[in-house]
Amino acid sequence: MLGQMQSHPLLISNLLVHAERHHAEQQIVSRRVEGDIHRYTYKDLAARARKVAKALAALGVTPGQTVGTLAWNGYRHMELYYGVSGSGAVLHTLNPRLHPDQVVYIADHAEDQVLCFDATFLPLVEAVAGRVKTIKHFVLMTDRAHMPAASKVPNLLCYEELVEAQDDRYAWPQFDENSASSLCYTSGTTGNPKGVLYSHRSTILHAYAGALPDALNASARDVILPVVPMFHVNAWGLPYAACMVGAKMVYPGAALDGKSLYELFESEKVTMSAGVPTVWQGLLAYTEANNLKFSTMNRTVIGGSACPPAMMALFQQKYGVQVLHAWGMTEMSPLGTVCTLKPKHLAMGADERMAVQAKQGRAVFGVDLKIVDGDGNELPMDGKASGELLVKGPWIVSTYFKGEGGDPLVGGWFPTGDVSTIDADGYMQITDRAKDVIKSGGEWIGSIDLENIAMAHPAVAMAACIAAKHPKWDERPLLVVMKKPGAEVTRDELIAFFEGKIAKWWTPDDVVFVDAIPLGATGKMQKNKLREQFKDYKLPTA
Amino acid sequence: MLGQMQSHPLLISNLLVHAERHHAEQQIVSRRVEGDIHRYTYKDLAARARKVAKALAALGVTPGQTVGTLAWNGYRHMELYYGVSGSGAVLHTLNPRLHPDQVVYIADHAEDQVLCFDATFLPLVEAVAGRVKTIKHFVLMTDRAHMPAASKVPNLLCYEELVEAQDDRYAWPQFDENSASSLCYTSGTTGNPKGVLYSHRSTILHAYAGALPDALNASARDVILPVVPMFHVNAWGLPYAACMVGAKMVYPGAALDGKSLYELFESEKVTMSAGVPTVWQGLLAYTEANNLKFSTMNRTVIGGSACPPAMMALFQQKYGVQVLHAWGMTEMSPLGTVCTLKPKHLAMGADERMAVQAKQGRAVFGVDLKIVDGDGNELPMDGKASGELLVKGPWIVSTYFKGEGGDPLVGGWFPTGDVSTIDADGYMQITDRAKDVIKSGGEWIGSIDLENIAMAHPAVAMAACIAAKHPKWDERPLLVVMKKPGAEVTRDELIAFFEGKIAKWWTPDDVVFVDAIPLGATGKMQKNKLREQFKDYKLPTA
Repeated sequence: MLGQMQSHPLLISNLLVHAERHHAEQQIVSRRVEGDIHRYTYKDLAARARKVAKALAALGVTPGQTVGTLAWNGYRHMELYYGVSGSGAVLHTLNPRLHPDQVVYIADHAEDQVLCFDATFLPLVEAVAGRVKTIKHFVLMTDRAHMPAASKVPNLLCYEELVEAQDDRYAWPQFDENSASSLCYTSGTTGNPKGVLYSHRSTILHAYAGALPDALNASARDVILPVVPMFHVNAWGLPYAACMVGAKMVYPGAALDGKSLYELFESEKVTMSAGVPTVWQGLLAYTEANNLKFSTMNRTVIGGSACPPAMMALFQQKYGVQVLHAWGMTEMSPLGTVCTLKPKHLAMGADERMAVQAKQGRAVFGVDLKIVDGDGNELPMDGKASGELLVKGPWIVSTYFKGEGGDPLVGGWFPTGDVSTIDADGYMQITDRAKDVIKSGGEWIGSIDLENIAMAHPAVAMAACIAAKHPKWDERPLLVVMKKPGAEVTRDELIAFFEGKIAKWWTPDDVVFVDAIPLGATGKMQKNKLREQFKDYKLPTA
Repeated sequence: MLGQMQSHPLLISNLLVHAERHHAEQQIVSRRVEGDIHRYTYKDLAARARKVAKALAALGVTPGQTVGTLAWNGYRHMELYYGVSGSGAVLHTLNPRLHPDQVVYIADHAEDQVLCFDATFLPLVEAVAGRVKTIKHFVLMTDRAHMPAASKVPNLLCYEELVEAQDDRYAWPQFDENSASSLCYTSGTTGNPKGVLYSHRSTILHAYAGALPDALNASARDVILPVVPMFHVNAWGLPYAACMVGAKMVYPGAALDGKSLYELFESEKVTMSAGVPTVWQGLLAYTEANNLKFSTMNRTVIGGSACPPAMMALFQQKYGVQVLHAWGMTEMSPLGTVCTLKPKHLAMGADERMAVQAKQGRAVFGVDLKIVDGDGNELPMDGKASGELLVKGPWIVSTYFKGEGGDPLVGGWFPTGDVSTIDADGYMQITDRAKDVIKSGGEWIGSIDLENIAMAHPAVAMAACIAAKHPKWDERPLLVVMKKPGAEVTRDELIAFFEGKIAKWWTPDDVVFVDAIPLGATGKMQKNKLREQFKDYKLPTA
């Protein structure tokens, strides 16, 4: 027997309609690539998104076709989030940090019909324009005054002209909520990037779950500045949650340095932000150097990589900014877990509470987690057993776009490639990437713990721990360190720094100093490159 | 093109699985009809709900069949919420405040197979047991020790025996998320009650929306005591939101007097509650008389009827308990709007802010609202235009159970029977029930405003304003007043009390004093009975 409730599809356009009716005057503020601060309202966003939908139709885009973007976080990108998906087309956010060859591969694979891009990326688009096969229209996201006098891109169109040529009379189409809404490719550290095709249903459910008090806790009283990019992992769903709750949004554009971010946090009275640890390093370096405080920011969500404990302590204890550790993946829309506390944790001392906050947190409702051993048997939730993390839920990938790489699921679960523990309260903690685990004498050593300890040393800017070959133990930990400018520390001092902080046999066998640690397109350390670089490294213990 | 996300139905059992994995040790505390306080955990709830599912199957209940409950707010009722719906059967919550004839009508209409009830309601069940046609099993929700020695109910079963006869090895079935999950009948002030058949999908979406920061803001750090009954309007969705967020739940059972509630609020450290104004009157009378404070409660959600401004002021200004005005209906699962504030309201003075809080609030995402004139034309959202309120959304009724009363929708919208305004920020304010509006010389006078003013008078316990016939104006307002025990006030003093608070022509033409104002099964004033009583009343102005 079926229920007798109204049948309404969960559509992304509903978010915009809701925001326009309930938060018409709420602001969206953007630092533009053009250099100035742009400011308008949800009412303006809604009208412009309708114009975008009409402009794309005028360019010949039909429902189900893909529209690519290469853009920073800003209001025009948000218009495309809604205008493209709302009209039934598919928003394909390309990551401009990828190699041009990968951009060409992805644009072709996705069969993008139109590519909208910020002026920053004109050189990249010029480099690929002659190579991509399906893109019929290149649209520079600026006004006529900022269009280049000449460009190697054929028939370069002006976004503002296209949009403003339309009126805003447009009714969002209604269709199956399982229709594709957007597409994002994994960063693809090995092999070709693979596409994750989100649906309207998955996006709305993800926005509901992500806005909950125990997730990002987004409300109409928040001012949210997402540093996490709209060109990757959907800015953790914040551009969607924004319309759901009517938060003021502040988009930083291309200026992600500490000074620019800090000024925007203060001038726009930002209450909440979200980003990867490397961004916060720049921000905190700036505030530390200039003896500054945050006037309004009360929390920041940190994900993408584990947040170094030293950074968490600094944010919370010195700046009064609560850190919410979070974890997710492109394949998960991306939110999986957020580390919000239970009442018993609030009663703990600062150190004990920090140990809980070091975990990536509890699953938001909708996501199921489990850890399994090498044979696929579920391991206990005791905070000790460590195994590969598997996930399932309505905003988690079932297959990659065009069936790339076959069926990724194992018995209905998606294997994340992360190794983690889960405690009895449901708090998950990543101990390593499956491929980064150091297998010493049949036991596993988690590289992340070692890195966190090293990063707490005042002379260390960044540290990676990788497996080096060992004749007796198979693998032993090798610590690769990038020092802070002007700082000095020796190998022996760093080795001694681990004493008492970890089981003795986990201590790295050696330390090497490098000028730079390679970072991938999403700001994560590329340990595969380090493993390649040090594949013949001879440990002193060997 | 469809997205490539995993396909998982939104099922009520998912909530319980989530709670068991993430909040196993969180408490559920109940004041039992047996007289004591019962305390267990979500882990216990999950195991017992599985046993309930098996026990019902053993009684012959199959998916799609209905199981009735006549029960207070308590853990056994919560077990039935999950055990019945989770197994694919339909939970039918009956309202014990209805007349026995209506209980018989509803049980027959719903084709209940089993009826589970608290000991309080044994006399009611004895009165109807011989008359209901489909109920095969009557289950008293208690243990063997508390079973009556004899009963007029044939083959009376003991809940604890049925449940504990089962083990808890049970896998929740997976099925279409649009399947019926539960059934609740409207209180039916005119004609027979009509059934609203909820689905698993509507229930989950409603729980997501209801837990959002700008709705009930429910988290794992909350201790929630729902006074609003589980036997009607699903206790505003809190038994579902509870599992979604892992809040500690406190159920008051049958003891809804001020003293019992206050003691539970304090002993269990309740942070949030929800109920109708009449319940809070009793609670505040107790705290006022005994000079008490709330140690932990920081907010309460008030709905069902408009919260009198005097009550809101008392809660907020004296007790530091924030009042969240809310509005919904049985037909809406029930949540429609919640009055949480925007930043600009927080900057206002107390009086100005109270004027915003007097409104029923903004639609939670998922619900669309509009107001229309007599011809169905949409009226502006200007906070002034007043018209019938129409709603739509995925947790709003499409048709009543068994098609009772034909198609209730008008162009896809459900007419609520409420008359309201909506302001430019989306805040809706009920001005009246469509049938309670007083039509004076072609203009509308809202009865609720007049009642709120009267209730602010220190001598008034309750006030209803109804239309009385008038030869010139068709209708004029007549104020029906129940005085506080021992308090004195005259007709002329009350009439004078309106001066300067409202347009002069809105002032009631007369006042009558009564010993009691009739209340319906959900605690609302039954103005239809008053209209009947005073249908021949001759106004002094006539």
